[in-house]
Amino acid sequence: MSKVITPRAQDYSKWYNDIVVEAGLADHSAVRGCMVIKPHGYGIWEKIQQTLDKMFKDTGHVNAYFPLFIPKSLFEAEEKNAEGFAKECAVVTHYRLKNDPEHPGKLMVDPNAKLEEELVVRPTSEAIIWNTYRSWINSYRDLPILVNQWANVVRWEMRTRLFLRTAEFLWQEGHTAHATKEEAIEETRKMLGVYADFAENWLAVPVIRGVKTESERFAGADDTYCIEALMQDGKALQAGTSHFLGQNFAKAFDVKFAGQDGKLDYVWATSWGVSTRLMGALIMSHSDDNGLVIPPKLAPLQVVIVPIYKGMEGLQKVADAVAPMIEALKKQGVSVKFDDRDNQRPGWKFAEYELKGIPMRIAVGERDLTTGTVEVARRDTLSKEVVKMEDVVDYVVKTLDDIQSNLFHRAKARMEEKTMKVDTYEDFKRLLDEQPGFILAHWDGTAETEEKIKEETKATIRCIPLDAVEEEGKCIYSGKSSARRVLFARAY
Amino acid sequence: MSKVITPRAQDYSKWYNDIVVEAGLADHSAVRGCMVIKPHGYGIWEKIQQTLDKMFKDTGHVNAYFPLFIPKSLFEAEEKNAEGFAKECAVVTHYRLKNDPEHPGKLMVDPNAKLEEELVVRPTSEAIIWNTYRSWINSYRDLPILVNQWANVVRWEMRTRLFLRTAEFLWQEGHTAHATKEEAIEETRKMLGVYADFAENWLAVPVIRGVKTESERFAGADDTYCIEALMQDGKALQAGTSHFLGQNFAKAFDVKFAGQDGKLDYVWATSWGVSTRLMGALIMSHSDDNGLVIPPKLAPLQVVIVPIYKGMEGLQKVADAVAPMIEALKKQGVSVKFDDRDNQRPGWKFAEYELKGIPMRIAVGERDLTTGTVEVARRDTLSKEVVKMEDVVDYVVKTLDDIQSNLFHRAKARMEEKTMKVDTYEDFKRLLDEQPGFILAHWDGTAETEEKIKEETKATIRCIPLDAVEEEGKCIYSGKSSARRVLFARAY
Repeated sequence: MSKVITPRAQDYSKWYNDIVVEAGLADHSAVRGCMVIKPHGYGIWEKIQQTLDKMFKDTGHVNAYFPLFIPKSLFEAEEKNAEGFAKECAVVTHYRLKNDPEHPGKLMVDPNAKLEEELVVRPTSEAIIWNTYRSWINSYRDLPILVNQWANVVRWEMRTRLFLRTAEFLWQEGHTAHATKEEAIEETRKMLGVYADFAENWLAVPVIRGVKTESERFAGADDTYCIEALMQDGKALQAGTSHFLGQNFAKAFDVKFAGQDGKLDYVWATSWGVSTRLMGALIMSHSDDNGLVIPPKLAPLQVVIVPIYKGMEGLQKVADAVAPMIEALKKQGVSVKFDDRDNQRPGWKFAEYELKGIPMRIAVGERDLTTGTVEVARRDTLSKEVVKMEDVVDYVVKTLDDIQSNLFHRAKARMEEKTMKVDTYEDFKRLLDEQPGFILAHWDGTAETEEKIKEETKATIRCIPLDAVEEEGKCIYSGKSSARRVLFARAY
Repeated sequence: MSKVITPRAQDYSKWYNDIVVEAGLADHSAVRGCMVIKPHGYGIWEKIQQTLDKMFKDTGHVNAYFPLFIPKSLFEAEEKNAEGFAKECAVVTHYRLKNDPEHPGKLMVDPNAKLEEELVVRPTSEAIIWNTYRSWINSYRDLPILVNQWANVVRWEMRTRLFLRTAEFLWQEGHTAHATKEEAIEETRKMLGVYADFAENWLAVPVIRGVKTESERFAGADDTYCIEALMQDGKALQAGTSHFLGQNFAKAFDVKFAGQDGKLDYVWATSWGVSTRLMGALIMSHSDDNGLVIPPKLAPLQVVIVPIYKGMEGLQKVADAVAPMIEALKKQGVSVKFDDRDNQRPGWKFAEYELKGIPMRIAVGERDLTTGTVEVARRDTLSKEVVKMEDVVDYVVKTLDDIQSNLFHRAKARMEEKTMKVDTYEDFKRLLDEQPGFILAHWDGTAETEEKIKEETKATIRCIPLDAVEEEGKCIYSGKSSARRVLFARAY
């Protein structure tokens, strides 16, 4: 195996990039800030999509699709939202290219094909969707609207990192409309719950559920709920957000409904989304210096069987011997591949699947056929065990569950270990540098203090945890009184 | 039911638009030429996606994702492709908006945020993908590459129609790379076969497989294969294309591989795609003056059960009685909904589901409970039958198959009836106006004749059918000799 992953201890950031590139997840493209998601990475994203899509449908949502482009006049209608995204908008100004008379064989933008009104490439779709909802909603009978969209969005970023921050990314955005404030808040919280469930039980990434401070809120929201995860290097990663939008978009786009009493009122809104950023959370939570580690529930391929043999006759013997095992594993819903490529050696294959994070590997040698055993390796612990062939199916099914659970508990223990209560600003600063992680500290509730701390330490308030204990204290920065601790960290 | 569909006989074009809008499939948006795909339409598209995606995977393909934007310099690299799409490209020229000093609350494009190189919003992805493949391919061991992408693309169209021709549309585009010409041609034909199989056995739309003439080829292809369907009004609709791209893109992007003998050669390419246009084919093939008709295999909802009752107690009785039936139908893989909304009458519901094209409807009255029978209606024939409750599951499963098959055979009989052999230009022109459909006629093989016929009659050569019989004849236009008939029609 010639490919080498830079060890975490040496350069964490390079380690991350190496894994993304060498495991074949994604790569930089010729377009500034945009990535190519390669088949192995896209395969994991498909599992994420399928799982979430089912969870959304099970909670009553349906999918739809809205335009990629938003006319500037619609985009600017909800002022805070527009202001929040204006600085990172890709803008379409022309609709035609023509031959460049001065450079034969080259094209140029046709100046005669200038759009009357510029089109913003969606950075998020509230504007175009709420402009559409106006014609969908007349009375309370049309509510709630529970719609989700799977789409690409573009936010022009100056510094990009594969999956974590790219100019174009893939995501889902739920946009719901409700008759009452209470119902909209309930929806906002319900979807936060769905995200937390997905993060913990599929991604195997423990998260803190919380509410953002005003300055960290989504532009145009009355409240932003979030799930925050902690990566191996002690930096936080926002893994999903769910926004209570109040009546802000209904007012901006004049979306009213007649209640049962016939009175007109503005509609209440939520929006919620997760993106290909989740791939970053998956990679940074579980992987090691040998490469990627994929939680079994999201692995496009869960088990690979590698034959060890001499000559095509030997390969055939192994193939015949494992055929019933493959059949039985598939019946149990396990995705399995028999890698019978004759142009690569077993050792190369072992390293390749380790790098790519396949949860389990079964090596079957010609000699094993006489003893009736195989060697089974698990990716999370790198441990190996000799298992009787007749026990393999049960062992694999059980072990896949075990790996899923182990990954979660390992990440949870790490998060707990790296979560500290701090009572002085000195300790706060020292810990951020020496033992980075989540810091629970008192804050006076002002945007000024929040901003000062951010300027001085690069740490932000990730959220006010939903389960924060009411506890009298003093702000670590201003010394003013505080009613509960909030969660600080440096973040991706 | 207040919604009314314009009858086909009165205005076919309006009938189509009425169905799309009134059945809740799609609607025009605030963005010129872009549509909103509404939940019911998107639900059908999801079934189309899932089915095709499985067919692609079963034939060895994997999914990936490439950037939405293509730098102009890459876009223009393959000249014919660039020339073919240049006139319909949306172009991003700026990456930021700013507050408009002259109009408080309004935004303007920030002139300081002009891109050094303009970005084309992909009209198709050959350029960005082949630029990427250069780094993926070194030797024959890296081939074939069998990749598909599900994506949105933008082609600026002046005259748009929902699903049939929109500025932005959703599609899949397969892009494969091969070591030999033969293998690439085989792939091109294989995927045409997949499309034909899907069209006939899922969409229930019969198609003619063929090859495009040079002037109708995809820009940048050496050969374009297609499937052509015939709509109820006798106009053709191109339902899918599969292109043999030769080494054109490999040469434009310098993609070479070392063969087993170590010699370098350019890689051979194919690309193939179908789009949300298929929704148009589905709608126009099967629907009637009462609304949409969905083939059961692609119906997000196959069976709806409508209770007929008085009072909530009556509703409960019906609900209890149908619960086991619903359970049993689901076990058979049938998607079924019990519409227990109390704020709409049964008659309104009947009309609603008819309009939306749900394949089967079961009406269950309180009185039926004593006789142990229900009324089952099928959407394709609008016929009703009284069925014993214990027979319902078998009856439904059988009838869904029957509807699927009936829709296909009905459409096939219509296509055959509307396919005519013509030997004179007079007959050709008369038929196009009086009995529009597919016309099999002799053509001299020149682009000039093809263009003249198109100018004079608006009919184009849809394809040279793969199963065309070798038959001496004379071109209907020039009288020159011809070796086989080609397929003409006016088309969408």
